Amino acid sequence: MTVISPLIDKLITALRQLPGVGQKTAQRMAFQLLERNREGALSLADALQQACQRVGRCQRCRTFSETDICRLCEDVRRQDSGLLCVVETPADVLAIEQTSQYQGLYFVLMGHLSPLDGIGPEDIGLDNLAERFAGGAINEVILATNPTVEGEATAHYIADIARQYRVKASRIAHGVPVGGELEYVDQTTLTHAFSGRKSLE
Amino acid sequence: MTVISPLIDKLITALRQLPGVGQKTAQRMAFQLLERNREGALSLADALQQACQRVGRCQRCRTFSETDICRLCEDVRRQDSGLLCVVETPADVLAIEQTSQYQGLYFVLMGHLSPLDGIGPEDIGLDNLAERFAGGAINEVILATNPTVEGEATAHYIADIARQYRVKASRIAHGVPVGGELEYVDQTTLTHAFSGRKSLE
Repeated sequence: MTVISPLIDKLITALRQLPGVGQKTAQRMAFQLLERNREGALSLADALQQACQRVGRCQRCRTFSETDICRLCEDVRRQDSGLLCVVETPADVLAIEQTSQYQGLYFVLMGHLSPLDGIGPEDIGLDNLAERFAGGAINEVILATNPTVEGEATAHYIADIARQYRVKASRIAHGVPVGGELEYVDQTTLTHAFSGRKSLE
Repeated sequence: MTVISPLIDKLITALRQLPGVGQKTAQRMAFQLLERNREGALSLADALQQACQRVGRCQRCRTFSETDICRLCEDVRRQDSGLLCVVETPADVLAIEQTSQYQGLYFVLMGHLSPLDGIGPEDIGLDNLAERFAGGAINEVILATNPTVEGEATAHYIADIARQYRVKASRIAHGVPVGGELEYVDQTTLTHAFSGRKSLE
């Protein structure tokens, strides 16, 4: 459907690649950028190109990084903490960092174990992780994979490896979200909340 | 807040320039593009650059166009229709074109009269529009500006110009949207719907 200009149509189609952006939203974005913010559009184009071309993976924790070793891995205080938090994606690292509560290192699986899709331990870097455990600098591994079937299976698999190297393994707590209403919480979460209850002394 | 990589932070900031995209959505977009769709991200960067650099204005109807005269203005059948539809933005042209019902020409104001903001008749191309009327090829001008105070004022202003050149002026109908429920329609729209009622004969 080429109506006004093939270039605008191409831009609308390209904007639809963004997650959660459908035809109407893409049209609105395209016209708004062209009408009012061409400078912003060009800076977005530049940021996309730079990020795609220069962002690789940290060689130590596998997260996105434009340097060989990411900033978090290079932080001496984090290295001294002896804590390693295992997450599925770089977005999880950002979410945890935004709490400002955790001061240890990360290890990013970039996925989870999924034998049916052919994703085995090496694909999510568990050989590297075992080397980290063998290195002796890690006292505790905190498993923060998603509370899905695959995430749980991955967490248990990693806990088994940790045990071999005598590294303490823990799993983040699952339960009712703070600010959430009990009425609207799903059954599995409620079950977790009950089985993981803490004594109030 | 630079956490993982300055380039990713820059990308997230740039994505927030898109209308309706906040911090969380921008993060999700950035990570999804980097993890799964770098090709799409590069094609988006390219589309943004091309559109910003090459999309200008049609010299006849003022809509966005990468050629001097846009495709719609060059369409001989539309030229022969004698119909000219006046809208505020190129997005409105697209919306009307998507109905496939209108087969005439357009004139895009790129705004509306707004004396308080210093936007006068020349700023929205009304001198060009008067020349079009004087040219004699237009039989009817359909005023499809937005049903806002400024849109109405602009429509009336253009109707006055049309009258001078003996061009028939009409306004698109305003009323209850098809599929909408009467209960949820605002009072002004309902008032329009009543005053614009049609006899069923």
